[in-house]
Amino acid sequence: MTNFKLKIEFDGTRYYGWERQPNKDTIQGKLEDVLAKMCPDMDPKPEVIGAGRTDAGVHARAMIANVHLETNMDAIKIRDYINKFLPDDIAVIAVRPVSDRFHARYNAKRRSYKYTIFDGPVKPVFNRKYYTRLDVALNKPGSTEDVLDVDLMNEGAKYLLGEHDFKSFCGNPHMKKSTVRTVDELTIRRSKGYVYVDISADGFLQHMVRIIVGTLIDVGLGKIPPERVQEILEAKDRKVASPTAPADGLALMTVEY
Amino acid sequence: MTNFKLKIEFDGTRYYGWERQPNKDTIQGKLEDVLAKMCPDMDPKPEVIGAGRTDAGVHARAMIANVHLETNMDAIKIRDYINKFLPDDIAVIAVRPVSDRFHARYNAKRRSYKYTIFDGPVKPVFNRKYYTRLDVALNKPGSTEDVLDVDLMNEGAKYLLGEHDFKSFCGNPHMKKSTVRTVDELTIRRSKGYVYVDISADGFLQHMVRIIVGTLIDVGLGKIPPERVQEILEAKDRKVASPTAPADGLALMTVEY
Repeated sequence: MTNFKLKIEFDGTRYYGWERQPNKDTIQGKLEDVLAKMCPDMDPKPEVIGAGRTDAGVHARAMIANVHLETNMDAIKIRDYINKFLPDDIAVIAVRPVSDRFHARYNAKRRSYKYTIFDGPVKPVFNRKYYTRLDVALNKPGSTEDVLDVDLMNEGAKYLLGEHDFKSFCGNPHMKKSTVRTVDELTIRRSKGYVYVDISADGFLQHMVRIIVGTLIDVGLGKIPPERVQEILEAKDRKVASPTAPADGLALMTVEY
Repeated sequence: MTNFKLKIEFDGTRYYGWERQPNKDTIQGKLEDVLAKMCPDMDPKPEVIGAGRTDAGVHARAMIANVHLETNMDAIKIRDYINKFLPDDIAVIAVRPVSDRFHARYNAKRRSYKYTIFDGPVKPVFNRKYYTRLDVALNKPGSTEDVLDVDLMNEGAKYLLGEHDFKSFCGNPHMKKSTVRTVDELTIRRSKGYVYVDISADGFLQHMVRIIVGTLIDVGLGKIPPERVQEILEAKDRKVASPTAPADGLALMTVEY
């Protein structure tokens, strides 16, 4: 058995997220189906371990995974075999043999996500599955102004940097493990009509990025002042944070080891 | 009646091109249907004049058109009305009132197109409707090299710059009008795994960009030497040029007046 590290790109639009689920299209499911076909004698069948479990509709530019395989094929042959049988919206960018002990989830030290928002008056036609359009812009036809105040959003964001208990930003009410995480990057910038939120942390709780983005959108709209983010964090109560932002604007960008 | 200039963006994937055709989805058809609904008393119905007729599957970042309308609505209201009723893959970016004499096709002085090719070993998942993948890359699994030689392509391209009879690059065998055009930009560059062909001219013959790209791809693959482009041009015979490149990689970028 050789342990292989995979770098995977996917358009999550039509998937029920990363994790295999019975009778549902998932990224892990599609990969494992192809690998089971490639290594028909393996029992149990190949199990692909992802760096994290992305939600339904979330994309990835570089998800990292590992899988132990019984095969004589080299890394490039494996990559090409998998891509030949994967659908158009999933691709394995790179495959390489790694130490048997490498574990894509447990060894990951840092994960980075990008959230893309469009807040202008005319919805862009291209890449329309890869950003979230602000409803407020929809409700303000004729406005040619940018709706979100990026400076306010950055001011609110600074309260979330560093090690904190992110319980208010956790979508799982039954979370039993620690909700403490360390956010080491959280920046908001505007470029060519889009607003980008870049966030990196040692790990993320369920829906954490999307709840943070939802809250920062409310800051950017002037609905809540930036200082309110600090109070939300201290409340350790999901109900005080803003609604979870939609999945389509979110993409996993990198995983570091 | 007021003459309005429209700037339009569209993803041409599911359309039979720009020009209205009975019982087929076209860009002009979709726009005219919405405008007829907006100005129900106009007889004849509004006619949208485009700067050019793009082929089936070709995209546009900024198609320019004009339309004479009987309406009291201002430009921004018109823009928002049209976008509200257009499908997601067509958007009117800007509307402004212009001189009655403005004609989007006759007055256009320069049109620019971009053709996007991917020639690497792993097909990118994102934007997969907006580039053409080289079959040669598909047939060479395991190759991690760039397949196209961009320097050779630029060498071949220089023979096409300036005023020439582009009959060899015209897809319409029954073309009765002049096939002389002036190409003032034709550059090929590689960036992040893609090869981009940028071309500008006073006007283009049917399939002209795609036949030029098809021919330059053969140069980039080493199938024909760059000097051969000069002979193809002089032959004034479509049969000596290479096959027409697919529509999906092509986008109309700008129209100048």
